[in-house]
Amino acid sequence: MKTYNYFKSQDLFKRAARVIPCGIYGHLSPAPLVPPASYPFYVDRAKGSRFWDVDGNEFIDYMCAYGPMVLGYGYEPVDSAARKQAMAVNCATAPGPVMVELAEYLVALIPAAGWVFFAKNGGDVTSYALMVARAATGRKKVVMIKGGYHGVAPWAQLPGNHGLTEEDYLNGIRIGWNDFEALEKAWDQNPDQIAAFMATPYHHPTFADSELPAEGYWAKVEAFCKRKGIVLIIDDVRAGFRLDLRGSNEYFGFKPDLICFCKALANGHPISALVGSEALKSIAAKVFYTGSYWFSAGPMAAALATLKELERIDGPGLMAAAGQRLTGGLKDLARAHGFDLKVSGHPAMPYLRLTDDESLMLHQEWCGECTRRGAYFTSHHNWFLSAAHTEEDIQRTLEIADQAFKAVKERF
Amino acid sequence: MKTYNYFKSQDLFKRAARVIPCGIYGHLSPAPLVPPASYPFYVDRAKGSRFWDVDGNEFIDYMCAYGPMVLGYGYEPVDSAARKQAMAVNCATAPGPVMVELAEYLVALIPAAGWVFFAKNGGDVTSYALMVARAATGRKKVVMIKGGYHGVAPWAQLPGNHGLTEEDYLNGIRIGWNDFEALEKAWDQNPDQIAAFMATPYHHPTFADSELPAEGYWAKVEAFCKRKGIVLIIDDVRAGFRLDLRGSNEYFGFKPDLICFCKALANGHPISALVGSEALKSIAAKVFYTGSYWFSAGPMAAALATLKELERIDGPGLMAAAGQRLTGGLKDLARAHGFDLKVSGHPAMPYLRLTDDESLMLHQEWCGECTRRGAYFTSHHNWFLSAAHTEEDIQRTLEIADQAFKAVKERF
Repeated sequence: MKTYNYFKSQDLFKRAARVIPCGIYGHLSPAPLVPPASYPFYVDRAKGSRFWDVDGNEFIDYMCAYGPMVLGYGYEPVDSAARKQAMAVNCATAPGPVMVELAEYLVALIPAAGWVFFAKNGGDVTSYALMVARAATGRKKVVMIKGGYHGVAPWAQLPGNHGLTEEDYLNGIRIGWNDFEALEKAWDQNPDQIAAFMATPYHHPTFADSELPAEGYWAKVEAFCKRKGIVLIIDDVRAGFRLDLRGSNEYFGFKPDLICFCKALANGHPISALVGSEALKSIAAKVFYTGSYWFSAGPMAAALATLKELERIDGPGLMAAAGQRLTGGLKDLARAHGFDLKVSGHPAMPYLRLTDDESLMLHQEWCGECTRRGAYFTSHHNWFLSAAHTEEDIQRTLEIADQAFKAVKERF
Repeated sequence: MKTYNYFKSQDLFKRAARVIPCGIYGHLSPAPLVPPASYPFYVDRAKGSRFWDVDGNEFIDYMCAYGPMVLGYGYEPVDSAARKQAMAVNCATAPGPVMVELAEYLVALIPAAGWVFFAKNGGDVTSYALMVARAATGRKKVVMIKGGYHGVAPWAQLPGNHGLTEEDYLNGIRIGWNDFEALEKAWDQNPDQIAAFMATPYHHPTFADSELPAEGYWAKVEAFCKRKGIVLIIDDVRAGFRLDLRGSNEYFGFKPDLICFCKALANGHPISALVGSEALKSIAAKVFYTGSYWFSAGPMAAALATLKELERIDGPGLMAAAGQRLTGGLKDLARAHGFDLKVSGHPAMPYLRLTDDESLMLHQEWCGECTRRGAYFTSHHNWFLSAAHTEEDIQRTLEIADQAFKAVKERF
């Protein structure tokens, strides 16, 4: 099986590094893609579950744009809806009627939603959610989970990161995942000061295994928040519409006050949404919050089409099945080669780790060997399945993984 | 001249108010559009300088989506570039080569730019600029202008707004526009604590006249910032690419360390950019900052096409001329009807105010009368010209304004 080279990617990256800090920054930075020689840096085109890089190499993509791609790249029912809308009107002096249609659709779909607010980034709506919680409670503090990611706003970043002031994070309290007692303790230490508890529906940090909620965890948290008047905010930016179209909280059986959506909402078209309880609607209306492109009609039409398609084909069911088939097959292959592959999180966005080397070197090498054979795997971040991943994709991926295990076995 | 009704807009707004806080929020909220019966709330389609609302009424649009529309709605060279790119790849697991091309183009075009960073919202880049300034200086405070708008992040909002904590704004210092001594005083009161001075290239607040920089103001500010190690940040989100394609600072003849662009960069396609001096590049690379859709190739292709078209047709020249023609004509008409119309700011984004009634009631009525006859004017915000506004548009607008003056004259 031939392995890929990335000469054009590397040339482009050299040009980029001259005119862009880091060349490619943020979550798409190649820095954690180790070994770097195994990864492409620039995409030429994409269709369905696959993309082709600028060197002409083909990949089955298990990162799905880090989440947004949920139905497949270039998914015609979504793209044509966006295109049709944009050719009539996109970003204008007033919104299009599609804003009302999309809001009505989401309120009907999502049991926790009495209303919807649209923005562009996931971080737009996590920040807005916190402001709404503060306005509603008259309190300042927010409890979050250690290792939980809620965007790049200063309040959401970790002390020690560049560009922060202590004022940015001194109202944040970080506790362990699944540790209900820590939430009670945080309250005891900050009585009547906690505006919000913000967490992802299950814990999916980077560079560490994912963790599902313990039995009874969310029920206890929900009841405690209700008792203390704490606004319960679910950051469903990463998991939203992959576990359950009605919100990942429905999958785990609890009801938050606010839910933040983004990524999979419009299959890559730029839109995010905060949904909230009827009780918080009037206070949400008082928080001033807006952005230049937030009312653009194209992405709203794309979101409506994405949600309808995900419902029609049972997207979450397809993704869970594909994820189970993939991770089950990979575990079996690992075992056959004498390795232990740990799979954690939900099957639609599994986190994988070869446990045989604590340094992660072995796991990185294996992910790199898979990628340079055409199955794009990262070693430090959960993967994403999409409804476009076919049985043939999975089968081909398992063949690639088999070759990759052979390659790393020779080296380790 | 027939005046418009907005029955369908009003029905849609009633539906919206049930499922969206405020129905329409933020800068597109109809709340400041007084009298509300004069304004449409939903757009059905848009082309060139015009849009058609859901009731079928046609408007010459002087808000241009509050800035993003700069070449005209549905401008084919831009939209086809975005469409072509998006049909190959848009939001994916890695960026497209167009990210490098656009960065190189901007660095070549903008004298103050040694590098470029792309995001989605204007507020993304004003926040990032402040973080870069703080990381570069190890200082906390930021001096801004009273009434200056830099987005909705808590640090940029005013004390007293809903959802804020005092920690959000206690590192912000607000001084008067054109008041260089106030900047010196801020430094004296906060020695070695000021990380950044952030301001728009000229002062364009809402509900108040615009003010151009006084002779020598920017030269003094630039020299003072250099002397004290303060990072000079220009928020060119609103004015950018309308005054001068090389940055509005070039129009006024000074050089900042960082410039924030958004709105007109891609004629409505969602993208923003921070450009900065070579000296700040390595520290910018250390500030972690990213978003789900920030690497999408479609809006980057749109930005590249927008900049090339604006250069080719001398967009800023066309907009200044159209703005001068419009505001000159309106002033003359006002005078002929016995009113005084004050015009302030740059002709491509003029702020207008009938001075004959301090309550603004007369001005609001006049703007409303123009709007319901087909020239969309707001009474509290600067307007925007675009390269699509033709001589015929201006002529038609003057006819409408004439009728509107007659209508308000009967009432006042």
